Amino acid sequence: MAKIAIMGHGVVGSGVAELLWNNRETVEKNALEPVSVKRILDLRSFPKLPYADQFTTDVNDILQDNEITIVAEAMGGVNPAYEFVSDCLKRGKSVVTSNKELVAQKGAELLALAAKENVNFLFEASVGGGIPIIHPLHKCLTANRINGIMGILNGTTNFILTSMYQKGMSFDDALKMAQELGYAEREPSADVDGHDTCRKICILASLAYGKHIYPQYVHTEGIRHVTPEDIAYAESWGGTVKLIGSVKPLPNGKLALMVCPMLLPNSCPLAPISDVFNGVLVKGDATGDVMFYGRGAGKLPTASAMVGDIIDAVKHHATIPTLHWAECGENPTEPFEDIPAAFYFRVNTRGKLPREVRGFELLKRDHAPDDEKAFITRVMPDSEATRLSTALEDAGVAVCSRIRLADFGD
Amino acid sequence: MAKIAIMGHGVVGSGVAELLWNNRETVEKNALEPVSVKRILDLRSFPKLPYADQFTTDVNDILQDNEITIVAEAMGGVNPAYEFVSDCLKRGKSVVTSNKELVAQKGAELLALAAKENVNFLFEASVGGGIPIIHPLHKCLTANRINGIMGILNGTTNFILTSMYQKGMSFDDALKMAQELGYAEREPSADVDGHDTCRKICILASLAYGKHIYPQYVHTEGIRHVTPEDIAYAESWGGTVKLIGSVKPLPNGKLALMVCPMLLPNSCPLAPISDVFNGVLVKGDATGDVMFYGRGAGKLPTASAMVGDIIDAVKHHATIPTLHWAECGENPTEPFEDIPAAFYFRVNTRGKLPREVRGFELLKRDHAPDDEKAFITRVMPDSEATRLSTALEDAGVAVCSRIRLADFGD
Repeated sequence: MAKIAIMGHGVVGSGVAELLWNNRETVEKNALEPVSVKRILDLRSFPKLPYADQFTTDVNDILQDNEITIVAEAMGGVNPAYEFVSDCLKRGKSVVTSNKELVAQKGAELLALAAKENVNFLFEASVGGGIPIIHPLHKCLTANRINGIMGILNGTTNFILTSMYQKGMSFDDALKMAQELGYAEREPSADVDGHDTCRKICILASLAYGKHIYPQYVHTEGIRHVTPEDIAYAESWGGTVKLIGSVKPLPNGKLALMVCPMLLPNSCPLAPISDVFNGVLVKGDATGDVMFYGRGAGKLPTASAMVGDIIDAVKHHATIPTLHWAECGENPTEPFEDIPAAFYFRVNTRGKLPREVRGFELLKRDHAPDDEKAFITRVMPDSEATRLSTALEDAGVAVCSRIRLADFGD
Repeated sequence: MAKIAIMGHGVVGSGVAELLWNNRETVEKNALEPVSVKRILDLRSFPKLPYADQFTTDVNDILQDNEITIVAEAMGGVNPAYEFVSDCLKRGKSVVTSNKELVAQKGAELLALAAKENVNFLFEASVGGGIPIIHPLHKCLTANRINGIMGILNGTTNFILTSMYQKGMSFDDALKMAQELGYAEREPSADVDGHDTCRKICILASLAYGKHIYPQYVHTEGIRHVTPEDIAYAESWGGTVKLIGSVKPLPNGKLALMVCPMLLPNSCPLAPISDVFNGVLVKGDATGDVMFYGRGAGKLPTASAMVGDIIDAVKHHATIPTLHWAECGENPTEPFEDIPAAFYFRVNTRGKLPREVRGFELLKRDHAPDDEKAFITRVMPDSEATRLSTALEDAGVAVCSRIRLADFGD
């Protein structure tokens, strides 16, 4: 009998408790022993639940209980989760977490601590909700060099962009609808400004390349500035706009990481992923493009990933040594302004386009006003696109939008 | 240093040797020790390879060598692979295989033998080539009850159907093109008649439901009878035709398994999967729909899955007890004629459609001849669709096509 504790009985934590209760036979079969929840840490009480008497408001009831060998952390945020998780690991308890902020900020340190104590720190649920991605990346693709990862990693923004695409809505209207449906928070910044995506691509990059990539290293743009006009141009070009987190190793040894809206051609396997669904495209040198798709958030999908990790920790309590990355030392990322791409521009001009734009592919859309133009540049570093933007403004051309084209290789 | 042997230096086996050689640093890092190929079994010799002196034509050079702890079987076919693999397991060697025919026919027996000897029998490469599916199904989804699996599991037929869809080609022309491009064999029956898909869905079903599903239990239809007209109707209906292997547990405890062309709505995540790509949609009760996508075949993708298993076996030589299924006893599958679906029919009639068809959804396509009609029935067991077919023929209506609609639940 494995005894576990859950920290936080919010959306995800309550899902873990429910799933361990409702699917206990499946869990026991797969864990090869029964798994029971001994303690649930929350400030609230839930008297109607069948496991109501397991609740506690005191973390010491978990930390000091030697019967509890695995702790599922679903509180979110860095504090106090970081202290609680560290304390658990130091007391020889394995920890599984859905907390992407914690993993993105403290992953290297907590993984090292777990290794020192010979226990596990597992975080499948921190990226892609119910989509298995951490384990497949770690286990099944171990024969590959990873040539890049691109992902739609945030369901809220994907829902908003899908609504803008399918219904021609503005960002504000689509956000409002997402909020009404419960897909977006009242304070939506973590989602719509790209921070959530940033944490997740940092975790994937850290795992794939073995060194901790801190969110503060990564150029992070959200989708507030994407307009229905941009999406209409993308459609007429044969593509769509998605918020993408991506990482790619460069020949100079640096990693090109970014989070920003990107123009994807419809031939990209990420392009048809709509609504709140997530997808992660992994490019292995041997396996080619592999994609993982599913619900990237939500109570039961995320809880299901955590319970998968709990089962793993029951079966192998000792550290999995290869699920690991080290502190990064120097910033291992390429400066964003040096990372090249082709760029989509939408501009306003009463006159002709200046000569800087000569040779670029012009785009069309239905019902475009006469003074609107859109084009796609050749491949250039971001800094050059910025200079082009300035040159256009200097020539009296108002730059309304500028969006990178995804570079997903062959 | 782990010493391994490869049986069969064909497309996949040579890929394994190449990958272990070219990516030896990545492999060593992930396996936590160097992995070297000591023997390669093949009747041919390959004098130019850097590991030319490892070749042997005598299986005893592998069986009797106690230094060799892991054997990668990539010969294909049941004989002599079955004898060789059994002998390896009996001598305490773990076996990894890409041989879907072997796993589909002898999986339960070989898994039991591996468990008895406390070694591994791993087969990630047997389904979906380079797509991680066996491990995710086994590990990451262990918290879920699996409510169904549907897959595009054969690249050759998907390439043919994609060509028919995109270019309006006939089956014969598309097959010829696939053969010219090397995507289809000169003797294409295993692919186009659905046997390859059948083996793969049997493996997935056996793993998901814990009992061996033999291919002979499964209704298996190929795509020879699908026409460009059917695909045009599917398109106008808002969908496409794919060769699908599927399994679903029924309330009566039986499993509904089948391999046949199915009409999928474009909203199904499998619908946009084109060319030689494969996709597997898994429905977990907690995680919802999860999809795995990538190259389902080919030298390096398949080899990459085998090397992933080799690394796993290096790290955990002892049996993974949950990667297992038992002999099935009685046939656990529902008779195909009892499995319900809605059906697409395409018929020829000079007169009106008989009253049996009243209330069914009529489909349209451009340039349809006057005497062609197509419709979609209500949901009915297969046996009733057969009776409807007979009734139509009796009324002088020629039934040209009949294709199931995919039933992928909510």
